[in-house]
Amino acid sequence: MAHVLGQNQYGKAENRIVRVYRDSTRHEIKDLNVSVALSGDLDDVHLTGSNANCLPTDTTKNTVFAFAKEYGIESAEAFGITLARHFVDNNEPIHRARIRIEEYTWDRIRTPDSSSRFIGSEEVGHSFVRNGGEVRTSEISYDGESVQVISGLKDLVVMNSTNSEFWGYIKDRYTTLQEAYDRILATQVTARWKYSFRGQEGEAQPNWNRSYQHVRRHMLEAFAETYSYSLQQTLHAMGTRVLNNRAEVDEVRLELPNKHHFLVDLEPFGLKNENEVYYAADRMYGLIEGTVHREGVVPVIPVA
Amino acid sequence: MAHVLGQNQYGKAENRIVRVYRDSTRHEIKDLNVSVALSGDLDDVHLTGSNANCLPTDTTKNTVFAFAKEYGIESAEAFGITLARHFVDNNEPIHRARIRIEEYTWDRIRTPDSSSRFIGSEEVGHSFVRNGGEVRTSEISYDGESVQVISGLKDLVVMNSTNSEFWGYIKDRYTTLQEAYDRILATQVTARWKYSFRGQEGEAQPNWNRSYQHVRRHMLEAFAETYSYSLQQTLHAMGTRVLNNRAEVDEVRLELPNKHHFLVDLEPFGLKNENEVYYAADRMYGLIEGTVHREGVVPVIPVA
Amino acid sequence: MAHVLGQNQYGKAENRIVRVYRDSTRHEIKDLNVSVALSGDLDDVHLTGSNANCLPTDTTKNTVFAFAKEYGIESAEAFGITLARHFVDNNEPIHRARIRIEEYTWDRIRTPDSSSRFIGSEEVGHSFVRNGGEVRTSEISYDGESVQVISGLKDLVVMNSTNSEFWGYIKDRYTTLQEAYDRILATQVTARWKYSFRGQEGEAQPNWNRSYQHVRRHMLEAFAETYSYSLQQTLHAMGTRVLNNRAEVDEVRLELPNKHHFLVDLEPFGLKNENEVYYAADRMYGLIEGTVHREGVVPVIPVA
Amino acid sequence: MAHVLGQNQYGKAENRIVRVYRDSTRHEIKDLNVSVALSGDLDDVHLTGSNANCLPTDTTKNTVFAFAKEYGIESAEAFGITLARHFVDNNEPIHRARIRIEEYTWDRIRTPDSSSRFIGSEEVGHSFVRNGGEVRTSEISYDGESVQVISGLKDLVVMNSTNSEFWGYIKDRYTTLQEAYDRILATQVTARWKYSFRGQEGEAQPNWNRSYQHVRRHMLEAFAETYSYSLQQTLHAMGTRVLNNRAEVDEVRLELPNKHHFLVDLEPFGLKNENEVYYAADRMYGLIEGTVHREGVVPVIPVA
Repeated sequence: MAHVLGQNQYGKAENRIVRVYRDSTRHEIKDLNVSVALSGDLDDVHLTGSNANCLPTDTTKNTVFAFAKEYGIESAEAFGITLARHFVDNNEPIHRARIRIEEYTWDRIRTPDSSSRFIGSEEVGHSFVRNGGEVRTSEISYDGESVQVISGLKDLVVMNSTNSEFWGYIKDRYTTLQEAYDRILATQVTARWKYSFRGQEGEAQPNWNRSYQHVRRHMLEAFAETYSYSLQQTLHAMGTRVLNNRAEVDEVRLELPNKHHFLVDLEPFGLKNENEVYYAADRMYGLIEGTVHREGVVPVIPVA
Repeated sequence: MAHVLGQNQYGKAENRIVRVYRDSTRHEIKDLNVSVALSGDLDDVHLTGSNANCLPTDTTKNTVFAFAKEYGIESAEAFGITLARHFVDNNEPIHRARIRIEEYTWDRIRTPDSSSRFIGSEEVGHSFVRNGGEVRTSEISYDGESVQVISGLKDLVVMNSTNSEFWGYIKDRYTTLQEAYDRILATQVTARWKYSFRGQEGEAQPNWNRSYQHVRRHMLEAFAETYSYSLQQTLHAMGTRVLNNRAEVDEVRLELPNKHHFLVDLEPFGLKNENEVYYAADRMYGLIEGTVHREGVVPVIPVA
Repeated sequence: MAHVLGQNQYGKAENRIVRVYRDSTRHEIKDLNVSVALSGDLDDVHLTGSNANCLPTDTTKNTVFAFAKEYGIESAEAFGITLARHFVDNNEPIHRARIRIEEYTWDRIRTPDSSSRFIGSEEVGHSFVRNGGEVRTSEISYDGESVQVISGLKDLVVMNSTNSEFWGYIKDRYTTLQEAYDRILATQVTARWKYSFRGQEGEAQPNWNRSYQHVRRHMLEAFAETYSYSLQQTLHAMGTRVLNNRAEVDEVRLELPNKHHFLVDLEPFGLKNENEVYYAADRMYGLIEGTVHREGVVPVIPVA
Repeated sequence: MAHVLGQNQYGKAENRIVRVYRDSTRHEIKDLNVSVALSGDLDDVHLTGSNANCLPTDTTKNTVFAFAKEYGIESAEAFGITLARHFVDNNEPIHRARIRIEEYTWDRIRTPDSSSRFIGSEEVGHSFVRNGGEVRTSEISYDGESVQVISGLKDLVVMNSTNSEFWGYIKDRYTTLQEAYDRILATQVTARWKYSFRGQEGEAQPNWNRSYQHVRRHMLEAFAETYSYSLQQTLHAMGTRVLNNRAEVDEVRLELPNKHHFLVDLEPFGLKNENEVYYAADRMYGLIEGTVHREGVVPVIPVA
């Protein structure tokens, strides 16, 4: 009985690269984690172990580091597009490249004597503290014809200490949950959004860094401003807020774990808990996932 | 401009349940992590916050614990099928259920005085040590008509200390890798395999526990017995070995990080390293992924 | 042969408590992870299983949550002192209490339409985003007579992209390291500092929150401003900077992993790497640890 | 005001080394994570940045790898002793060395066609699966005069599904816990034990590997065989069992988190839970710690 080799891909994952710009004494840094996945005419590698069509994962790693010098890293997305095009356009057996990038951001350490550390009129700046908040993500795919860019973020933890209710749901034999008219709503946002950009001749790239900041801000604002009757409603508000404000985005997918904060029963101790003391639970958690996209757009961001 | 609500799902994730069987003084335990995801007629929950069609995630959690008592847990797969059918068949707005389960296994602690702890002829057995090896996984989906079962494992770490080579690959401007004629091959296996079982009237369930043991064994044997010229070749050998031996499985997908072990250069110390001393690297790592399926079968296991 | 029961302690660890202050529509939150450890007259609990002298760990948990309501949480340190005194002063068999607390901080989400969300003249503020940076730590001990407070932080990641050298070290048979005259210096700061405060009658507590902010700032500034010839030198500069500026602190201990950033060799690709492209390694890492204390003070912060 | 440099140490942490023995076609492997910490005459390194007395952490790493070849790794403890002696005896400014080692164990993959893979009468054996259970630990210290060896393990997870009670404890205003007469007792054992071995002239080293296996077994048996009224009682039984049976050990310290398994209330669903269905909680957990040592021995294993 014949077996078929289906989807397959390979590459070097988690290339941790730090790029320093030293054009002035005020340095800039980019801190990325880059993963490469290549597909193509790779049947022989699997069937016979012939590596004639195989660009080694080690070479994909070298290319990441070399390109950081040759082309620089203006944004993760632009860097990923350059890498993806290179692998496909310069290796006949490679038909598709997918570059995933995580980006970690750093803030400057500002010191009171900064003034004394000027050289002439140039600020000295080479000290940074890592911003421990959300991780910026991107996934760039290229198949020889068009580019697809899905950007995102993860580990953005948010909380509303009020303006959240949950009631009116199905009751069955296994229902014990009490309806809630004032609860904490907290979640750790994982978001991915697809750009309409396809990388065609003459098509200008969006300003990826600016777009990211705006998408992030719109999601935070929608989270804060939505009086919520379900986390699904909040998810939908966050997704549509992005589509309404950012023309360059045509699909948004969100994964929102409901980080439960349970009101602690203080009555046994003669105390009244007026929504003041909560136990923050790890597990179990509700998990709410959903996509919002523009009409006519075929959604492509996969279920996690 | 209208926006469309695309794929969405929700449910309680990571319900950590331990089920003890105390039918005799020789106890048995099942230790699972169960995640529920439901889809269906849920537009209102997102658009207006009306929860009339929403079975709360809390109820899905209660159901998991109640079913462990009502139906028992013979295998994760059978338990997941019972849960998935329940949610869809008993809640009109719910059209699809996906149950993901991780299973942790425990071995008995055997003690020299076990004999003295018999009651009559019955062995006393209530002490266990967790088997820290691979985690068994399963994903059961039900759409009201048919069931789909994808079983698997993760965190199975294996190593061949020889019988692995890598050479004859593409060389380009960014190549620095030396060809290898005797290297360590180590990986942390994540595997998923789909059963042909569809849960139709009168269709018998496979023996899930037995099938798991055999699939695991065949993968280990294929890993050990393959003289490897690429990790892709080993991946293919593992997948086809399963298909060749287990008729109930019709698709296998593997994710194999290449856990690099670099030969340490001991020459500066006047020592010769004859493939004896290696540095085990964390990152970067090669990542090799692929699917093997029977002819005529449409593969469904998604790319991670 | 007799065996002796030595140091022992017990209590509930990792009580995850969120305290919301709702005195106005502008809420405040405190997010803590509190661990209790009690010692005392507990020989019987170990030797015979008699729990007559045992305050259950469950009760220590309840006390944490109840005290958050009864006494509030102005600072982790003040909260810990109140808890530690309670356990010792109100339970005759308990002679010593150690409270460890991690604190996670949250920033407000600011929205453009905040103005429209005023109620009368009161700002609405109930939306927060977790500050993912360093975790604030504290350890409060009380033995019935005096209090000891060790505050600290962890996971504060900092980098200097220049102004670091390393040369002039011992060379032996196993030396291969090249001297460096311009390298990246990066570390993930774990710091603990002891206060001279002993909690005696009439002794005022320091302003713990203000002290924390200043200690953190002084360490960051010392890190940024030190032209470094060894990470030890930077460690010493950070510790003495705190002692020089904060009279309430009399001992500082730092653990500084040297998060290596290796310059990538780009010469094989015809490129020159002028300190621009680095590989950020996970392991191995140098680990530099040390204590600085005032003369005459007996250091008490233990080695990790 | 003068400040004093207190305890300080440095070295390369987490050297991940795999040593393969290829003396026959039946390979053996040792898989270690080695961390070095050196102390001594290092004031200048901290005060002036002069590295004249500093053996670089990079060199300590090289030494670990070189020694794996030169001296082999019969056991982690013997390897650590050789390393510690080397650093102190060969570097005048270094007065003390502490080597910490984690060891990961691997089992052989056995295959049915092993027979066909014999060469002459020699078994082919180069395939291994990592044993994911507990990690073996050791800490070797040497100050130029005597050696101290503290061995241990971590991540050994055990459970008794019955034979555990908890009642008769202190009740106060904050008590809500119900007394339990049949509960699950589960814990994740971290154990450290000190050997009386001091590394003096002519003193034979214990058989470290054999001793480890026996200590581990005695702890497991004591856990299984103790009918427990408190986890403290179980801790004490485990520690004394080791002292009673292993003359080479004179101190044992255990850290036992009480991994709570809460009985799920199934009554709302019309079901009776006869100690069959449990929810396995992550946090909070009780944490029980204690030392047992021989009379006359000064305990040295520090509180974590």
